[in-house]
Amino acid sequence: MPSTETRYQRGQRALADIDGEAGQKVIDALADIAPDFARYLIEFPFGDIYTRPGLSLRDREIATIAALCALGTAKPQLKVHIHAGLNVGLSRDEITETLMQMAIYAGFPAALNGLFAARDVFASRDETARNIATATPSQPQYKT
Amino acid sequence: MPSTETRYQRGQRALADIDGEAGQKVIDALADIAPDFARYLIEFPFGDIYTRPGLSLRDREIATIAALCALGTAKPQLKVHIHAGLNVGLSRDEITETLMQMAIYAGFPAALNGLFAARDVFASRDETARNIATATPSQPQYKT
Amino acid sequence: MPSTETRYQRGQRALADIDGEAGQKVIDALADIAPDFARYLIEFPFGDIYTRPGLSLRDREIATIAALCALGTAKPQLKVHIHAGLNVGLSRDEITETLMQMAIYAGFPAALNGLFAARDVFASRDETARNIATATPSQPQYKT
Amino acid sequence: MPSTETRYQRGQRALADIDGEAGQKVIDALADIAPDFARYLIEFPFGDIYTRPGLSLRDREIATIAALCALGTAKPQLKVHIHAGLNVGLSRDEITETLMQMAIYAGFPAALNGLFAARDVFASRDETARNIATATPSQPQYKT
Amino acid sequence: MPSTETRYQRGQRALADIDGEAGQKVIDALADIAPDFARYLIEFPFGDIYTRPGLSLRDREIATIAALCALGTAKPQLKVHIHAGLNVGLSRDEITETLMQMAIYAGFPAALNGLFAARDVFASRDETARNIATATPSQPQYKT
Amino acid sequence: MPSTETRYQRGQRALADIDGEAGQKVIDALADIAPDFARYLIEFPFGDIYTRPGLSLRDREIATIAALCALGTAKPQLKVHIHAGLNVGLSRDEITETLMQMAIYAGFPAALNGLFAARDVFASRDETARNIATATPSQPQYKT
Repeated sequence: MPSTETRYQRGQRALADIDGEAGQKVIDALADIAPDFARYLIEFPFGDIYTRPGLSLRDREIATIAALCALGTAKPQLKVHIHAGLNVGLSRDEITETLMQMAIYAGFPAALNGLFAARDVFASRDETARNIATATPSQPQYKT
Repeated sequence: MPSTETRYQRGQRALADIDGEAGQKVIDALADIAPDFARYLIEFPFGDIYTRPGLSLRDREIATIAALCALGTAKPQLKVHIHAGLNVGLSRDEITETLMQMAIYAGFPAALNGLFAARDVFASRDETARNIATATPSQPQYKT
Repeated sequence: MPSTETRYQRGQRALADIDGEAGQKVIDALADIAPDFARYLIEFPFGDIYTRPGLSLRDREIATIAALCALGTAKPQLKVHIHAGLNVGLSRDEITETLMQMAIYAGFPAALNGLFAARDVFASRDETARNIATATPSQPQYKT
Repeated sequence: MPSTETRYQRGQRALADIDGEAGQKVIDALADIAPDFARYLIEFPFGDIYTRPGLSLRDREIATIAALCALGTAKPQLKVHIHAGLNVGLSRDEITETLMQMAIYAGFPAALNGLFAARDVFASRDETARNIATATPSQPQYKT
Repeated sequence: MPSTETRYQRGQRALADIDGEAGQKVIDALADIAPDFARYLIEFPFGDIYTRPGLSLRDREIATIAALCALGTAKPQLKVHIHAGLNVGLSRDEITETLMQMAIYAGFPAALNGLFAARDVFASRDETARNIATATPSQPQYKT
Repeated sequence: MPSTETRYQRGQRALADIDGEAGQKVIDALADIAPDFARYLIEFPFGDIYTRPGLSLRDREIATIAALCALGTAKPQLKVHIHAGLNVGLSRDEITETLMQMAIYAGFPAALNGLFAARDVFASRDETARNIATATPSQPQYKT
């Protein structure tokens, strides 16, 4: 990364790599109510933390999925990060193992609610994949 | 592992590998008050979950350290699992990265309290290492 | 109970007695995403804990309803256990008393959200009872 | 206030001043399930606490909005108190500042979920205001 | 109870019956910092809630012990209520069963920390009992 | 503030104004374990958030004290912010009112633990004041 890249630019790049469209939707949703908070969200979590060396993005997503599942108060964000985990190289099995393990530390309801969030995310990605596979073949295909 | 190994035996082996002496101390402390709970603790978290394939012990400890730091209600268990993370191959840097990242999901106080727990664990391991290094060399050395 | 009964069998029996159909629905919902977790859910909470002597099922449901109401992060599970409480002998009044008391320990919003969950469960059981009462009278009636 | 006013009367007055219709709806919703709890809700939080001198209603709503946003388990009550904050003199900006600040103490997901709750409340009040503004001009207008 | 008894008087009586000396210590500790809060603590939790018919004190203490163990943020209050549970008729076994069950809903660390709190309370009561047993034998002995 | 001031400089200034020595101690304590986190702590909470216009420091401390009291997982940070509240203009009464109010939203134990934290902070400031008042008058006085 060029040394002249700002925290904001670095964060935007990381957000796109990790959260993809879901991350951008959160940023857009903040435009009306708290645009500065959108900037902080890009700068601190993504520009400062996720882009640090010392822990891979894959490992960082294990940590985030575990924490959000255990807390149980952030279902939309948990779903975004289950997508993110898949985006940065976690397998579905690794994600369900992480969620199941949370039964030990935050109880069975937290693990169950995390697993059901994962089921929804996996189904939504299967649906997207099916839509792409069955689209008219004479047209160029773009992943949406 | 032999197919005749029971959940309890498998769990004891995993507990020893992961938590070392700290795990055994918890089991011993339960003897007076709830010995059956000591058995469940060996069987379910360690015999059932930690010994599953699909996620390495190293990855499992990232998840556990993240969750316990985020919850903020289990300081003794967080310390046991910072030790455990080091026992199964996490570096000190990987653990501090995991804890710092929790500022995003559970707030700065949760991350700070997790980092101070890690500082205590690291210092205690340095102290142990110094004691071993400076012990009379003509005596056989046992790790305490 | 026969001494040859496995944890799984004992847990299935307890799950059916306590949670009824709602419990089976949770187990079924896990089939796609984490079938092993369905097994753990039957074995540890129900096979190991709920079937222990030393505390009646009625008393265990007071504890569970109180804890889930206080935590405030497990609304579907709280509803399942309000049903369960009624299944194992708690009166509606005893359940609302338990939920009201949580205002002291987890705040008024936690108690309110618990009471509204109970209102939904009670209404759903009244609806089921009405449907049975108005079914064709020449058929024998079984409460489902 | 007359010295003969009861806690209940004082609480009803405070509830009406602070929460407006939303408060009354909560009281009404409790009528079926736990009417005594409706009375306690009027008497203790509103009759005892909110009517105490020593902290203004405006300051009290900052505290409540902050706490409910940080806890993350009481979305309906957070919305009621964002309305209440506006009713007792907080500006929209002061409320969004309070919610943004919670990212520090309870994490970014808690702050995001709080900000989205505020966006909904602000939109609902804008909608109400538009409806009043466009109502038949020959009729006297009452704010509902 | 005479109809002229105030909420405060009723609460004081309930506090003494349930929490004994430990309750009075909390009230005394508030004298410097928030004497009105001491009054509210007597009036609402004890004068309003614990003295309601519809759930026995024994059942209420199961609910409270479960909730405080699950929340994991109120160790001093959990200890007070483990004492209280014993004061109003719960056995040690019933309390440890309640605490063990919390592993299902709030995780193993919450249950462990609850069980260690119970171990401390039980030991402290054994110590008190020993001190009484070994006091001058010519005096009549009353268990405090 | 000069436009050339960096986030770090702005944050250091705010940290000194708000938290005083207690803030610097936290920064120093991080030097061994996570020096970058000390920088983030200065930059994001203090450089970005606390220095925003739109909410006074006094109001921001009401929000922080309320949130930390309600969460119940950050006693050291709650104490730092009770000091901070006094530093930026809250009276002791305003702080105890804020803490008492948390009984409504997070339960009586959370409020009690917050009030006892305030009692400790107030006592420690009284002690400091007494030491200054009784120091040898011929010596220049420095606040410690």
